[in-house]
Amino acid sequence: MKIDAGKSVLSANDQQALRNHHKLGETHLVAVNVMASPGAGKTSVITALLENLPQELQCGVIEGDVASSLDTDKLIAKGFRATQINTNGACHLDANMIAGAIDVLGVRGPGFVFIENIGNLICPVDFQLGETLRLVIASVPEGDDKPVKYPGIFAAGDAIVLNKMDLLGMVEFNLDFFMQGVRAVNPKAQVFQVSCRKGQGVSSVVNWLLKHKLGTPIS
Amino acid sequence: MKIDAGKSVLSANDQQALRNHHKLGETHLVAVNVMASPGAGKTSVITALLENLPQELQCGVIEGDVASSLDTDKLIAKGFRATQINTNGACHLDANMIAGAIDVLGVRGPGFVFIENIGNLICPVDFQLGETLRLVIASVPEGDDKPVKYPGIFAAGDAIVLNKMDLLGMVEFNLDFFMQGVRAVNPKAQVFQVSCRKGQGVSSVVNWLLKHKLGTPIS
Repeated sequence: MKIDAGKSVLSANDQQALRNHHKLGETHLVAVNVMASPGAGKTSVITALLENLPQELQCGVIEGDVASSLDTDKLIAKGFRATQINTNGACHLDANMIAGAIDVLGVRGPGFVFIENIGNLICPVDFQLGETLRLVIASVPEGDDKPVKYPGIFAAGDAIVLNKMDLLGMVEFNLDFFMQGVRAVNPKAQVFQVSCRKGQGVSSVVNWLLKHKLGTPIS
Repeated sequence: MKIDAGKSVLSANDQQALRNHHKLGETHLVAVNVMASPGAGKTSVITALLENLPQELQCGVIEGDVASSLDTDKLIAKGFRATQINTNGACHLDANMIAGAIDVLGVRGPGFVFIENIGNLICPVDFQLGETLRLVIASVPEGDDKPVKYPGIFAAGDAIVLNKMDLLGMVEFNLDFFMQGVRAVNPKAQVFQVSCRKGQGVSSVVNWLLKHKLGTPIS
């Protein structure tokens, strides 16, 4: 067997991710892969971002869950465009699921498509979906040791939101230790301190998103 | 090919789990597979149980983490017997990993071996480890919708600890909705409301464990 070392070999998933990326780009949509533990506040952060992004942008949400459509129902009730993927046991989204969901969502940009991945700090990391940006959310009550214990996902984030900052002081959480853990695996990512409940810190994340509005090529 | 329908066919993992179960049983050890999201308080609950179980029992902890030995170091510093498994990316423990860890741990009962699984509400469910009991931990700041979103793991629990009860009222959490979600998939499991931080509710979990001290056969 001859291996052509000069040729990039993409997995079937990554080939589909590239097609998704191009398809989204055709209508000036930037996809954001939102990854976090169960209960870190993925839907709350996405909702806060949708509420604070400029009105002229066209945005939508692809909601991934093992089961239920609770979050999609909430987003639609608030007037946002959203569609649900149920993985029925699978621990991450993949590019094929997203290909179908893009069609169902039917949003045309310029704007953002937020992809809420399955609540899981491990499995989603290895699957490109067609995103331009990866947003990793951690939350204060989960504890300051998550970057040390789950380095892969914190290394993969283009930005990291530390959510539920309103609970700082009510639980054990050393902000310096958390940041050391992040920096050990990801020296560059911006880290935003946010409380969705208090509406704090969201505008900084919005500004960061808007810098990427035109999208960047998938590598 | 002839299939003998009367004969139970176990996966290689479950065969090893059965061997682990028998090996533990030979020295009157009952293994408890502790499963939860990242940051729900697995180590805190295990520590509280170790501190409140009768002194005459011989107990130990097998700590599963993708990376780091933070929790094992903490347990050993408190005087408990513990050994670390690092999965280096794998999203659950399996029976082979436990077989090795039982030997390293070297505890002889009567007592309990707590197996802290990888922080993940999906992947650990399908892998028997040799445990007699499955303890699922949820926590108040994760939100009341976790049983609806991750039904498989809540169905699998012999008991469920709802931890961080001291944060009730500081975050959105409807206890009735949580319980409805649990009961929809698991009518029988006992549910214990616990705050490790305040030391509340731990004695009920200890009493539940002690009822199972002699162990029950794996099915």
